[in-house]
Amino acid sequence: MLKILWINPVGTALYDEHMLGILRGIKRPDVEPFVTHLEKGPDHLEYHYYEHLVADELLRVVRKAESDGFDAVVIGCFYDPSLREARELVSIPVVAPAEACLHVASTLGHKFSIIVGRRKWIPKMEGNVWLYGLEKKLASFREVGFSVRRMMKEPEKLKEAIIVEAEKAIKEDGAEVIILGCTAESGFMKELSRRLGVPVLDPVVIAWKYAEMLADLYRNLGVAHSKLYGYEPPPIDEGWLK
Amino acid sequence: MLKILWINPVGTALYDEHMLGILRGIKRPDVEPFVTHLEKGPDHLEYHYYEHLVADELLRVVRKAESDGFDAVVIGCFYDPSLREARELVSIPVVAPAEACLHVASTLGHKFSIIVGRRKWIPKMEGNVWLYGLEKKLASFREVGFSVRRMMKEPEKLKEAIIVEAEKAIKEDGAEVIILGCTAESGFMKELSRRLGVPVLDPVVIAWKYAEMLADLYRNLGVAHSKLYGYEPPPIDEGWLK
Amino acid sequence: MLKILWINPVGTALYDEHMLGILRGIKRPDVEPFVTHLEKGPDHLEYHYYEHLVADELLRVVRKAESDGFDAVVIGCFYDPSLREARELVSIPVVAPAEACLHVASTLGHKFSIIVGRRKWIPKMEGNVWLYGLEKKLASFREVGFSVRRMMKEPEKLKEAIIVEAEKAIKEDGAEVIILGCTAESGFMKELSRRLGVPVLDPVVIAWKYAEMLADLYRNLGVAHSKLYGYEPPPIDEGWLK
Amino acid sequence: MLKILWINPVGTALYDEHMLGILRGIKRPDVEPFVTHLEKGPDHLEYHYYEHLVADELLRVVRKAESDGFDAVVIGCFYDPSLREARELVSIPVVAPAEACLHVASTLGHKFSIIVGRRKWIPKMEGNVWLYGLEKKLASFREVGFSVRRMMKEPEKLKEAIIVEAEKAIKEDGAEVIILGCTAESGFMKELSRRLGVPVLDPVVIAWKYAEMLADLYRNLGVAHSKLYGYEPPPIDEGWLK
Amino acid sequence: MLKILWINPVGTALYDEHMLGILRGIKRPDVEPFVTHLEKGPDHLEYHYYEHLVADELLRVVRKAESDGFDAVVIGCFYDPSLREARELVSIPVVAPAEACLHVASTLGHKFSIIVGRRKWIPKMEGNVWLYGLEKKLASFREVGFSVRRMMKEPEKLKEAIIVEAEKAIKEDGAEVIILGCTAESGFMKELSRRLGVPVLDPVVIAWKYAEMLADLYRNLGVAHSKLYGYEPPPIDEGWLK
Amino acid sequence: MLKILWINPVGTALYDEHMLGILRGIKRPDVEPFVTHLEKGPDHLEYHYYEHLVADELLRVVRKAESDGFDAVVIGCFYDPSLREARELVSIPVVAPAEACLHVASTLGHKFSIIVGRRKWIPKMEGNVWLYGLEKKLASFREVGFSVRRMMKEPEKLKEAIIVEAEKAIKEDGAEVIILGCTAESGFMKELSRRLGVPVLDPVVIAWKYAEMLADLYRNLGVAHSKLYGYEPPPIDEGWLK
Repeated sequence: MLKILWINPVGTALYDEHMLGILRGIKRPDVEPFVTHLEKGPDHLEYHYYEHLVADELLRVVRKAESDGFDAVVIGCFYDPSLREARELVSIPVVAPAEACLHVASTLGHKFSIIVGRRKWIPKMEGNVWLYGLEKKLASFREVGFSVRRMMKEPEKLKEAIIVEAEKAIKEDGAEVIILGCTAESGFMKELSRRLGVPVLDPVVIAWKYAEMLADLYRNLGVAHSKLYGYEPPPIDEGWLK
Repeated sequence: MLKILWINPVGTALYDEHMLGILRGIKRPDVEPFVTHLEKGPDHLEYHYYEHLVADELLRVVRKAESDGFDAVVIGCFYDPSLREARELVSIPVVAPAEACLHVASTLGHKFSIIVGRRKWIPKMEGNVWLYGLEKKLASFREVGFSVRRMMKEPEKLKEAIIVEAEKAIKEDGAEVIILGCTAESGFMKELSRRLGVPVLDPVVIAWKYAEMLADLYRNLGVAHSKLYGYEPPPIDEGWLK
Repeated sequence: MLKILWINPVGTALYDEHMLGILRGIKRPDVEPFVTHLEKGPDHLEYHYYEHLVADELLRVVRKAESDGFDAVVIGCFYDPSLREARELVSIPVVAPAEACLHVASTLGHKFSIIVGRRKWIPKMEGNVWLYGLEKKLASFREVGFSVRRMMKEPEKLKEAIIVEAEKAIKEDGAEVIILGCTAESGFMKELSRRLGVPVLDPVVIAWKYAEMLADLYRNLGVAHSKLYGYEPPPIDEGWLK
Repeated sequence: MLKILWINPVGTALYDEHMLGILRGIKRPDVEPFVTHLEKGPDHLEYHYYEHLVADELLRVVRKAESDGFDAVVIGCFYDPSLREARELVSIPVVAPAEACLHVASTLGHKFSIIVGRRKWIPKMEGNVWLYGLEKKLASFREVGFSVRRMMKEPEKLKEAIIVEAEKAIKEDGAEVIILGCTAESGFMKELSRRLGVPVLDPVVIAWKYAEMLADLYRNLGVAHSKLYGYEPPPIDEGWLK
Repeated sequence: MLKILWINPVGTALYDEHMLGILRGIKRPDVEPFVTHLEKGPDHLEYHYYEHLVADELLRVVRKAESDGFDAVVIGCFYDPSLREARELVSIPVVAPAEACLHVASTLGHKFSIIVGRRKWIPKMEGNVWLYGLEKKLASFREVGFSVRRMMKEPEKLKEAIIVEAEKAIKEDGAEVIILGCTAESGFMKELSRRLGVPVLDPVVIAWKYAEMLADLYRNLGVAHSKLYGYEPPPIDEGWLK
Repeated sequence: MLKILWINPVGTALYDEHMLGILRGIKRPDVEPFVTHLEKGPDHLEYHYYEHLVADELLRVVRKAESDGFDAVVIGCFYDPSLREARELVSIPVVAPAEACLHVASTLGHKFSIIVGRRKWIPKMEGNVWLYGLEKKLASFREVGFSVRRMMKEPEKLKEAIIVEAEKAIKEDGAEVIILGCTAESGFMKELSRRLGVPVLDPVVIAWKYAEMLADLYRNLGVAHSKLYGYEPPPIDEGWLK
């Protein structure tokens, strides 16, 4: 069995059970899903300072996952926080929802649009699109005007708002694939795909499936992220890896 | 069980058994691999005219795979021949080695290099890099000076030639990941990764693993390539889909 | 006299006379125009599978044109079907409407827009813009909502629809040049240029004029497309060039 | 007959006869070539200040060409000096060698290299590649270490130096087409194409052929560069167009 | 004291006093501002031919500034006219408003929009964005429909029109920073920044501050623009530098 | 007087005096320089995990600088660590060496090269080049094979190694400007500029001068980084800004 750990990088256990339920429903038969959260920190990461606030514990959880024998971890936020640092510290695959969604979407159609909660999110996310090298495949960002907290509170209204913006993305921006740009925009994949007539990528599902693939490649075929150059780890004898 | 069909798009059965052996060794437990070839056509696709020569039968095999209940197909050549047409014709996932390798490599390091047999191959392959939107992640193409036929005949010499060029790609071009740019450059993944100290992506392995992921997404979650716009199929009543 | 062959890559002779009339009206005095069609195949190429269906006969016509002493051929569809394969097979210039229009438009203004029939066409055409390297010069695609068949049936309505979309391209997208993105959008060049106040490029006219230039360069100065690397032809002794 | 004027934008009549000879040898039968020079100014334009020094007379010659009934003009320097201003002032086609060569080369192969005299020339020329939108098609610049004056004095040595650098461009940079980046690198097209095995574009020949095509389009079909936006001319009543 | 010369590159002294007043209000304590104009030429540079008309005197003023001991000059027009030539001729820093604004704006937010007077201006200005390498940071151009002359006559109407277009740039195009794309759009920086809630860059202010920084770097630390390759000056013994 | 704080983001006071000496030597007369360090953390930031380790204290120092009335801060490391978070948290200008150097270099020449210590550094730094939007202006990265610690210990050897690599960057890669890609590569600006014949940008000097300019713009003209969208700060009532 491959063991994969989904990390909710927020300081609340509220979402763990729900997330575990989702993952159990979509996991490969040979994979055992685990979900964890952080002991402290905000309950959402809309601000980059909040990403910073959870980074230390997040990285400790990632490192512990490796020593505990996990075959891969997922950092469960669409900002892909601390991805570079995590890959520097461990050798097991570290999967991030935006990176996974952008690449999978690129293989499902000519261009994709990303539906975000607020305009605040776009600069960092577009920066990530540039870092991942996929700006040519980006049709547009579209915002629904929901904070993460409101997303959690009003899922039905969120779903309708997503449909409105996704339809504009499809008709006006030429998107062939829709990416939901927040792990809180989850649970609608099948319904939205059907209603919109294009694939709608749920970042929870896609990140998980991508993690299963990388865990498999790592455990059975010995391939994971490169440890040369960018992800070269700090030397142990400098004493900062405790 | 998910059934996936690997298509060797060449007019010879010579490689089928060998390929089936590889796939059996790397497949998910819940996947059943199948391998097929074409009845006629060249034994390699180095020339774009040869890609054309096999297109008709290849597309028929892809369509038959869908009606036979396969959950995904792989077009087993690194030129990704007839990918657009195949996706237009069917709703099951169609996976192509270059597309899969480029996206997976992009999630394993900052930049990748592609080791090809001959310079002849580069213009179309670089065009594909542009179509897939990943030119920023491309460190370089490096050629070993082998035709496909020579690759099949001299695998040990091929392996050594790959190491020479991959080392240049790593040291001179800054590649963190190496992609082997031909399905005939297969079987060396573990050894080369170990010797070179960076992940080396075997297009057979990566395309297969990507196909498993997409087959799973398709069968269990209802998501495959978009059928809107680019992959919209021809209308049946025009009579050309027999 | 330079002999140039315009190939209507569809399975009907319906357009040949009309096309020959156009070409006779615009040709250089030292050029003799010929028009041909295919024996079988769809009457339009809106679907990529249809491009495939005509490829075999199209390539045979191109090769025969070379052995018959033609100085250039034009593949008369704005998808530029089989262009790479055709150039691999022959040494005479092979001209394609989209490629010719994009480059000529780039020398006539800062940015151009392309007026297409349906959104279906855009992904492949935008992929071609990327392959030709001209994405920075593309102001926009605009669609009129006409299939090719409707274009042929309702030329007056088509013309008015083009004007509506071209004006948006000019005013909203900043286009300085308009490209008509289908060889069925032909015959309006002068009128549309006058009414819109910007150059409007008819793909039939521009492809033909570009072909005259390349035929001249080839016959009189010995320069045509490179036969090194990308367009290197298959070796005769492999037996697939019959 | 179409009348086209080649302007040697330098303050010497030395090259006129030679240039006229070349153009008579390559012109279309329905074209009458004319060559002129400037009354004063440097005998080469390697420095941007020199481009400035000839701009005023050059623009007057261009405007006079239009009022004299010419069907097109060519600005005979590979820096394409004063191209934007000239097109703003006149409605007849204005052709520039770099622009014409870059676009024609793009239709003859996957990538081209430009052989320049000195590194000094590259920043402006690469800036022009960016302005023309073709950076993806540029394999490399290669320099031969010749000033324009030395080019004129030592044509045989120049030719050999071009071969050395062009071979590197082909073998190391993957160029499929070679562009000679100076109108003084002229007269070798056939020989160099034969010796190098790839198309070698002489900027005099290509600019002239492109001018013939645009003159034809302009005179017979009413299409030339857009006069909207970028090339909108100054209003006569402001009094600066004397 | 660092002496910096602001050049109004137009044939009128009308703006000098006003400009000097602005510069005295914003200058560093260790800087002495000077303002000059040209003896002849248009009173605005909306047309590229007008840029040409002032180039000769402009370059003479730049060269004289260097021999008079100025520590930097500013070419006071948002087209950045004759920037390349000026830097070729002198070693003191030459600052241009668009270049300075684009770079400063890039360090103040994710994307900027440029508010121009007329669409006519955009092609050259967008070409400059490409030359400066910053197209990814450009959210949009927005035009207010004012000529330079009308800008000077109706500053209040101009201000309101800027606000309308800037708000669209912020809300529809995602601009985080607004650049005023004409030195005649000056004097509103504080008010507009306050009313729009984002930094609004006045090209007079930004160009001046950038010039102060470069003058300081040049005089005190010996660094100015590179004189190798692109800005290599013409040799004196060729006799054209009088 | 403008007060600007240089932060050495490392857990040692060793460099403070030296740095203060440099800044006093280059500062504007109306600026008072301050230098500080962190209480704990590594003595270099070659690893991204180390950037993380100092982030918390670094952000606290940045916030304290704002409440202490500083007019700008500089984050003194060429990785530009925590730049996005710092700008989110404060309204005073936050300057980072790589961002400042890349933009200033872009205004001093056509292309620049960056001399780094080890290849390890390049992926993040090239990612920053992409985020800042300046990939077209990057001639190359060149590495000298020095860790930061060795840089500090062997400055003379470092200087000679920089010269070797910078010369290659100039001659082989066409760099017109050299950027020293580490704040430990400091103190050589004048000597290296003289010996190499091109401007060599010391990140300490350039970041400081850029900070002086932004502090001036902020304090006297009310313009700093945008607080809309990307740098929108967390709401105080969520309680995480203590």
